[in-house]
Amino acid sequence: MMELNFSKRGDALIGQEMFRLLDLSKKIELEGKKIYHLELGDPKNYRFELGDPKYYRGAKNYPPGRVINKTIVSLLNSDVGYASSGGLTALRQKLSEYLSKKFGKGVGAENVVISTANMLIFQILDIVCEKSDAVAVFTPAFPSYIATCGYVGVSMVKVPLSAENGFNLTKRDIDKAFSSNPKLIFVNSGNNPTGAVYDEEVLRYLLERAKKRDCWIISDETYGMLSYDKKYFSMANLDYEKLVVISSFSKVFNIPGFRIGYAIADPRVARKISLSTSTLYSCLPLFTQEGVLEGIPVMDAFAEDRMKYYKKLCKQCTDILSRSKYISCTKPVSAFYLFIDIRKLGIDDKLFCSNLLEEYRTVVTPGASFGWKGFIRASFCGAVDDVKKGLKQIVSYADFLGRNLRKKSPPVKKSRTKGE
Amino acid sequence: MMELNFSKRGDALIGQEMFRLLDLSKKIELEGKKIYHLELGDPKNYRFELGDPKYYRGAKNYPPGRVINKTIVSLLNSDVGYASSGGLTALRQKLSEYLSKKFGKGVGAENVVISTANMLIFQILDIVCEKSDAVAVFTPAFPSYIATCGYVGVSMVKVPLSAENGFNLTKRDIDKAFSSNPKLIFVNSGNNPTGAVYDEEVLRYLLERAKKRDCWIISDETYGMLSYDKKYFSMANLDYEKLVVISSFSKVFNIPGFRIGYAIADPRVARKISLSTSTLYSCLPLFTQEGVLEGIPVMDAFAEDRMKYYKKLCKQCTDILSRSKYISCTKPVSAFYLFIDIRKLGIDDKLFCSNLLEEYRTVVTPGASFGWKGFIRASFCGAVDDVKKGLKQIVSYADFLGRNLRKKSPPVKKSRTKGE
Repeated sequence: MMELNFSKRGDALIGQEMFRLLDLSKKIELEGKKIYHLELGDPKNYRFELGDPKYYRGAKNYPPGRVINKTIVSLLNSDVGYASSGGLTALRQKLSEYLSKKFGKGVGAENVVISTANMLIFQILDIVCEKSDAVAVFTPAFPSYIATCGYVGVSMVKVPLSAENGFNLTKRDIDKAFSSNPKLIFVNSGNNPTGAVYDEEVLRYLLERAKKRDCWIISDETYGMLSYDKKYFSMANLDYEKLVVISSFSKVFNIPGFRIGYAIADPRVARKISLSTSTLYSCLPLFTQEGVLEGIPVMDAFAEDRMKYYKKLCKQCTDILSRSKYISCTKPVSAFYLFIDIRKLGIDDKLFCSNLLEEYRTVVTPGASFGWKGFIRASFCGAVDDVKKGLKQIVSYADFLGRNLRKKSPPVKKSRTKGE
Repeated sequence: MMELNFSKRGDALIGQEMFRLLDLSKKIELEGKKIYHLELGDPKNYRFELGDPKYYRGAKNYPPGRVINKTIVSLLNSDVGYASSGGLTALRQKLSEYLSKKFGKGVGAENVVISTANMLIFQILDIVCEKSDAVAVFTPAFPSYIATCGYVGVSMVKVPLSAENGFNLTKRDIDKAFSSNPKLIFVNSGNNPTGAVYDEEVLRYLLERAKKRDCWIISDETYGMLSYDKKYFSMANLDYEKLVVISSFSKVFNIPGFRIGYAIADPRVARKISLSTSTLYSCLPLFTQEGVLEGIPVMDAFAEDRMKYYKKLCKQCTDILSRSKYISCTKPVSAFYLFIDIRKLGIDDKLFCSNLLEEYRTVVTPGASFGWKGFIRASFCGAVDDVKKGLKQIVSYADFLGRNLRKKSPPVKKSRTKGE
């Protein structure tokens, strides 16, 4: 077979581990085996709106119903043509009104640009940074920052946060980030995977330092609206031309498959992002944009319900994990991820995940993908029975490993699914 | 205001002129003015399926009905979560079966990868080429090749085809392309904007030369199924590890807003593209993929109908254009674009387009965007009354300019919409 040589960028592609795991586990499911999915932030709990009042009291009954219905109406209206590259004008307008009200300051439609949130990470990084630039990332970090930095080829500087400090961001961490003289810093409050929400004072400090150093900030606030145990401070409250706030409709509306997010930015940056979209993929679908537009008036109310749901479920989940003395987990204050410390088990996190899938039919993401070995990330936004069962499987496997700690390599039987 | 410095890639972004024109014309429409849209390949003719038998006899009544309905069913089933980065497995499978049958050779699911077709242009170029590489593009060319080459920063070599030869590709053009020692060559049969369909013999020659020179080929066959006046030869019939065939569901199913296309490639290239998708934007929506999947069994029949429709309409459109002696147009043998020669008018094509929009409320795309000055591209896939009216406006403006040819600069009155 002829050898294919890819470009440096091509060779540097690593993708997102969660999607590799999704593919892998789907293959196993095709063999008829039941898999517990805790690998992706792929909310399945909206099904409870329809049926189970235990988990969803006082449902607003709007999104995703409202969003879905409007998307369907748009499809029936044959709104299946091209849209504006920067996003549907009405959506940018409505969103800017919503944001203006929220932040008590003027956010114009020219400050808002629509694109897939994950794509925005790449778009902004690539239009701002050269390969020679340093980019600071606080770890543990959402894998796309790491994958995108690697792809674009910038020199990524990982600034490790402290597990003992609940992975909170401190001024010292910020100072450390600036010591590498970065062109851009990623910050992700409402953090994925840790669930930490950063202090207003610290984020203000970050911005002040960035201003002085002429440094770009990408503030990924995808989970900002799902902060149930701490008051959330959005960097969109602050003014700085090189600050770009990214968010998404995926997690609030339980529609990650819509692939719609947005950036709040200086109009010149927003225009540049539109131009990037025009070049790379023309535009997002019209009908999905019309769908989320319909959801905006009830977004806050829906987020409120989501938060109640996740707060309650989070407690139940951490209770399950606490049954094993070999693992631990800082209680998240936002979103729906548990970043679980497995260091006591003396096993590589990737191996743990691969064994957990093979032997316990449970998919979680290794900490290594977040630049943080010795941990695993379990998502609890999936079907709730699966989530609880999956967490119990983690506990079973951890206990199994813990009890065998003295043996050199943990035994793994390949004969049957364990822990059930 | 603080100056914002973007990266070299950021500075090189030009986007697609059609989308700038779309935004511009929509602004004018907001003022309540009627605009004739001929700027984008945005098919609106499916509305005729419902009503007008004159344009749509024997409608199969499947896609987009079938595609739309299935998309709606998927939305109602809450298939709004993440999908595989390489595309829905069932879609890749079904598509590979369809393609195997079509080309009489084994195309496996591992040869097929789903992504937005426009995005694939960037994805492949970026994972194959370094900035130092030469990339050959036959002009006139689809603006995304030009925009993407500029963005990625490769050294683009334009190989001009001959208007007098109906913009057909010849062996001599291919030799010229290879003389620049390109890493990759774009070829686009079922050409946008010229409507030319290249000879099998010439495409085979291209492939043989590419093999000898170890050169990548991106064969964009988005309009391959809409070749109504010449037998179409797909490069997917040929075998070569560095050949990537791109196509799309947009034009056959009249659903460009679905943003779904695919590539047929060596499995290693397909996997690399999946990894690119995983890194850049995670995945495409599940429900839209399920929609197009439902359309595949009737794709050929639907394309057949589309061809009949476009063939007939094309004749009517070129008849309208022939009313002016100042402009001319090679009759396209595929797709739905007219590449109109305005050189006799002695006016810059961008100025022509801008005046045509302002004075005649008609949007077309300047040839300059296709790397070919002195021409304009008019799309005839829009609402048919608009198309015909728009073409008449072009004729009116051309005649107006033609009659005033002796004057130094063509007079443009700003008082009222002309030609109606």
